[in-house]
Amino acid sequence: MNRPQHGGNLNWAARIAGCPVSALTDFSASINPLGTPPSVIEAIINGTSRLFVYPDPAYPELRSHLARHHAIAPESILPGNGSAELLTWASRELAQHNFTYLVTPAFGDYFRALNAFGGNILPCCLNFSKGESQFAPTIPVSMSPHPQSGLLLNNPHNPTGKLWTKREILPYLEQFDLVVIDEAFMDFLTPNREQSLIPMVADYPNLVILRSLTKFYSLPGLRIGYAIAHPDRLKRWQQWRDPWSVNVLAAAATAAALQDKEFQQRTWNWLAQARSRLFRQLRAIPGLQPYESAANYLLVKTEKSATKLQEKLLRDNRIVIRDCLSFPELGDRYFRIAVRTPEENDRLVKAISFILQH
Amino acid sequence: MNRPQHGGNLNWAARIAGCPVSALTDFSASINPLGTPPSVIEAIINGTSRLFVYPDPAYPELRSHLARHHAIAPESILPGNGSAELLTWASRELAQHNFTYLVTPAFGDYFRALNAFGGNILPCCLNFSKGESQFAPTIPVSMSPHPQSGLLLNNPHNPTGKLWTKREILPYLEQFDLVVIDEAFMDFLTPNREQSLIPMVADYPNLVILRSLTKFYSLPGLRIGYAIAHPDRLKRWQQWRDPWSVNVLAAAATAAALQDKEFQQRTWNWLAQARSRLFRQLRAIPGLQPYESAANYLLVKTEKSATKLQEKLLRDNRIVIRDCLSFPELGDRYFRIAVRTPEENDRLVKAISFILQH
Repeated sequence: MNRPQHGGNLNWAARIAGCPVSALTDFSASINPLGTPPSVIEAIINGTSRLFVYPDPAYPELRSHLARHHAIAPESILPGNGSAELLTWASRELAQHNFTYLVTPAFGDYFRALNAFGGNILPCCLNFSKGESQFAPTIPVSMSPHPQSGLLLNNPHNPTGKLWTKREILPYLEQFDLVVIDEAFMDFLTPNREQSLIPMVADYPNLVILRSLTKFYSLPGLRIGYAIAHPDRLKRWQQWRDPWSVNVLAAAATAAALQDKEFQQRTWNWLAQARSRLFRQLRAIPGLQPYESAANYLLVKTEKSATKLQEKLLRDNRIVIRDCLSFPELGDRYFRIAVRTPEENDRLVKAISFILQH
Repeated sequence: MNRPQHGGNLNWAARIAGCPVSALTDFSASINPLGTPPSVIEAIINGTSRLFVYPDPAYPELRSHLARHHAIAPESILPGNGSAELLTWASRELAQHNFTYLVTPAFGDYFRALNAFGGNILPCCLNFSKGESQFAPTIPVSMSPHPQSGLLLNNPHNPTGKLWTKREILPYLEQFDLVVIDEAFMDFLTPNREQSLIPMVADYPNLVILRSLTKFYSLPGLRIGYAIAHPDRLKRWQQWRDPWSVNVLAAAATAAALQDKEFQQRTWNWLAQARSRLFRQLRAIPGLQPYESAANYLLVKTEKSATKLQEKLLRDNRIVIRDCLSFPELGDRYFRIAVRTPEENDRLVKAISFILQH
């Protein structure tokens, strides 16, 4: 039975657990456990009356909603079929450079996209140093990169949850010909903590930001993301891809999601409390070491095999966690879990405790 | 005001007509006027409860539905975000050949996709010869193409409605290294008339078929299409594109659409009658010459300017037709109209008659 390439593949997990997918509790995909906002579901259902019309390839309404949300120009925004689609086109541009510096461990789809266009990947592994900074991997990218190189960075970083500050990233904009920052989880940070580089796009034509509605609004099935970059670059991408990349239901959902400030606040309230409680509980379990995270997931180091723990949680508790075998730098001594509701988190902690003590 | 690049762009038309998009009657996009089947809308609405789950990148259920429908192996099918997405990857492969023979006039997105990967396009214009065959453009592709070349063909052909028989196409499979056939409108042909090359895919690894649910099931807003080709080729494409290209609502819609045999039969019944009636009515208008069509649209030659006719229909009748300016081989003396309901078609014919006589 093939292992899944991505945390979201629940068919595999259900076969191991011997239950239907709906009976699983999924800590493997880092999706907001508050679920898709009802306002968004309503917008989608209303949108079904317009399925017979082609989307306008310029997506004027969708772009103006996003532009208002981020206080930037609509021309700097290109919506896509999930940010994964836009990663493909960003990677086509990165691959035209001599090297792409890739901060690792990295999401497997980064390798897929860069390899698709023959990119030369230079992995830069995060420094998981011991001691005082053990929960804060240090930044590994060389300060004098090869000329004509690009950088692909995930902020907050997946799977560690590390957050780079704007100030830490700004020098890279001078050193690299192209800097692509995947901010798929940045929405989970409150305005006083977020470190998005979106405001820098107007000043740096070599900067590309990728954003997603998938995680925060619990919409992985709908496919909606967007790139923020120089308009000339985005026009080029539009000629590479098909004209109707975003389905009309995803466009309607985006408009509703951005307006739902109550859901946004509720998510922030849940995350701050649930994450710190889960972190403390995990740290209290002998043999486990969670890392401080700015996102809605925690990377955990374990003295015992993560693969075995994953299998036991599946068989005994129908709980899915993410092993880190697809991150070769991490291997069998790490796992990643999404922060879910307090009740679900408690259940996970109890199950892990039990397994590790027996 | 920019002209739309595609018949489906109704925002432009509504501005000219001075009315909301919903007040337009759209003959410009060749979409089934019976609308999205209620069974499909229901499947989409039910699917909204599963938006919080990532699609399985292998799309096992969706592929097995399509495989059963066409009586082929699931491995030979790759679903995509509309067939336009798959055209992009097919074009990447075509562009690796010395030349791509492209039967013209051709859908503008073919040029976009081939140019995106630096393809060398050799246009082969259909022969609009006078006389007996004037309604049946003859096949223009050279019988001895350059070595290592590809062919991109639309069957039935857009915008002429011409249908090539399987027997006419088969020799090309021997002569070209890669043959891509866009069968986006083939569903509109009844089993005794259709000329799909899908059954040939098992024997010809150099054959790619593109199909779409957009036109027949009136779903341009949802984005669902699929490629049928050799499994090795499709695996390559899967590494080029992102893993979750098809949204879960589109997958649910496909399963429901393929089962709705009543809608299929109703569409076939409507089209046979409505098209021949509309054809006769247009032929009876002095100065107009419609072409025989196997699809759900008619190409019409006009002695007077099609652009002016288009504008008058918009301003006076809120009716949108497709001018052919984006097909340089045709220009201002042709227009294309979708076959719609008998009542709508009668209204169009009346409006055109009136305009041409005044």
